[in-house]
Amino acid sequence: MIQTKAYAAQSPTTDLAPWNFERREVGSHDVQIDIHYCGVCHSDLHQIRNEWFPGIFPMVPGHEIVGRITKVGDHVKKFKVDDLAGVGCMVDSCQVCYNCQDGLEQYCVEGNTQTYNNLGRDGQPTYGGYSNTIVVREEFVVGISAKLDLAAVAPLLCAGITTYSPLRYWKVGKGHKLAVVGLGGLGHMGVKFGVAFGAEVTVLSTSPSKEQDARALGAHNFVVTSDAEQLKAVQGSFDFILDTVAADHDVNMYLSLLKTSGTHILVGAPSKPLEVPAFSLIPGRKSVAGSTIGGIAETQEMLDFCAEHGIVSDIELIDIKDITGAYERMLKGDVRYRFVIDIATL
Amino acid sequence: MIQTKAYAAQSPTTDLAPWNFERREVGSHDVQIDIHYCGVCHSDLHQIRNEWFPGIFPMVPGHEIVGRITKVGDHVKKFKVDDLAGVGCMVDSCQVCYNCQDGLEQYCVEGNTQTYNNLGRDGQPTYGGYSNTIVVREEFVVGISAKLDLAAVAPLLCAGITTYSPLRYWKVGKGHKLAVVGLGGLGHMGVKFGVAFGAEVTVLSTSPSKEQDARALGAHNFVVTSDAEQLKAVQGSFDFILDTVAADHDVNMYLSLLKTSGTHILVGAPSKPLEVPAFSLIPGRKSVAGSTIGGIAETQEMLDFCAEHGIVSDIELIDIKDITGAYERMLKGDVRYRFVIDIATL
Repeated sequence: MIQTKAYAAQSPTTDLAPWNFERREVGSHDVQIDIHYCGVCHSDLHQIRNEWFPGIFPMVPGHEIVGRITKVGDHVKKFKVDDLAGVGCMVDSCQVCYNCQDGLEQYCVEGNTQTYNNLGRDGQPTYGGYSNTIVVREEFVVGISAKLDLAAVAPLLCAGITTYSPLRYWKVGKGHKLAVVGLGGLGHMGVKFGVAFGAEVTVLSTSPSKEQDARALGAHNFVVTSDAEQLKAVQGSFDFILDTVAADHDVNMYLSLLKTSGTHILVGAPSKPLEVPAFSLIPGRKSVAGSTIGGIAETQEMLDFCAEHGIVSDIELIDIKDITGAYERMLKGDVRYRFVIDIATL
Repeated sequence: MIQTKAYAAQSPTTDLAPWNFERREVGSHDVQIDIHYCGVCHSDLHQIRNEWFPGIFPMVPGHEIVGRITKVGDHVKKFKVDDLAGVGCMVDSCQVCYNCQDGLEQYCVEGNTQTYNNLGRDGQPTYGGYSNTIVVREEFVVGISAKLDLAAVAPLLCAGITTYSPLRYWKVGKGHKLAVVGLGGLGHMGVKFGVAFGAEVTVLSTSPSKEQDARALGAHNFVVTSDAEQLKAVQGSFDFILDTVAADHDVNMYLSLLKTSGTHILVGAPSKPLEVPAFSLIPGRKSVAGSTIGGIAETQEMLDFCAEHGIVSDIELIDIKDITGAYERMLKGDVRYRFVIDIATL
């Protein structure tokens, strides 16, 4: 067994604190990664606080994992020791269902195995990237180009692929008007990818103070949605809205901003059901859709695209001892745009 | 002016009764149709009772209109006297917006002019097909093949195109599993078109008694949704669900029956907003969409497709004096599958 240092929550009501545990030995199809950086996702906080469902404790969060491979199993083909590598939100799936066969492991019919707060196919709990090392089967490991700033790559494994995948699936690009709602970890990547794909990108925000940031990220337009005049000017104008907001919100106002046949894509997950009047969809052949992360091959495609186009996340690197404070700032939206833990501080 | 006989509601609380009014003279781009049959749509009842919005009274309902052309204007090119012709839910649109230019007059940015209970672009109220004649600009008239039973064609103008258009837009066909919810005027056409397009069609119903009818219409499968075992067997199995139910209902159960990337298409319009949990959409990249009727070119395409494949609506022909009783039976779902008024009885 592999001795592992980590930060864990012992219960939904305790702060993260140092904790040691053992990971499995490196099997013949496994890769061991020395974790250098791990991104901080809002879902980490949702899960250690049991806000979505009863969690498995102790819980080691973290699913935006990057580092360097230190050991590979006998049968590993894609990777060798010293390669830079990443692990995202899942570490296993059935590999045989129609979705897995289509490269859509995120939608595995049996359910994929989440990187933490889940039971693996061996019945053991999974532990995430707020730790110094991880062992993962090679099919769920992706390669990272040395061209990119490694710490700033970490959020691509969740925030990046969560926005890249739907924009690719709905073929968002040249000639499209894309609106992005919520300028956080996901939203700022949605802007970058939308711009890189050739769409005309508008950031929709309640806060005029975000305009400068939105434009710095590449957004072509900025609309203050609390300003009735500005809102009126963009009625029926967007082909797609990428909605990254996880807090409860009214999607109806956004549906009125879609063009005929437009699609409102949810990648944030509000806890209360959305209220969608049929009359907001039917008279314009509009859709409300959801999407989550991406498959492994698509995640690799995204990382290669990022290497080619010099795209990374905007991050603030933190000491793991400051994680509780970082969560507090994240709750206030006080981060541009993702905290990343320097695992060397563990 | 053209003296016209009709049945009209004088107010939201009175039954339909005979009423005479004048239609405009046939303009140079107009066609006058001697109405032979008019289908009875549930929306006729919603509108005369002000259930959707305050209506314009007296109201002559009816937007599934078929008959024979008796007069054409000087500049009419597509039609001549004695042609069989039909008029559906709209009689005008701006003709210049991006939707009209794309043949999507139903989504006209200025709003299309509805066949009844609307003000035309001349500011005058429009009156529908529960009448002996109608004058319509030629762009909103469609041709009907003499091969088809004319009375049974009438419902194609609304119930037909409302189901044909989304199935075409989402390219439903061979290799797809399509479920149809609600076996009424719309649903029975959804089954016929789904089968004609090559999809494997399943009717979802709460009532086991509808199985024989569903299969007679061509459905390959029938699932009683109140039977937990049957419902479990079709979890995650449909590419598309065509939801024709206008009564308030829970769409969540249906979303669980969709495959990954599946689409739930609303063509019925429940009055209360749908409650859609984000977690019903995100984990399977699912969509909830809406659609209404079709453009004029697509309506003609549908009628030509129907002529080629011998598709018409299953109807019960009624005397216009029995319209109030027909509404009562329609409310109870006691019609297979569409009442059509024989206008000769007017």
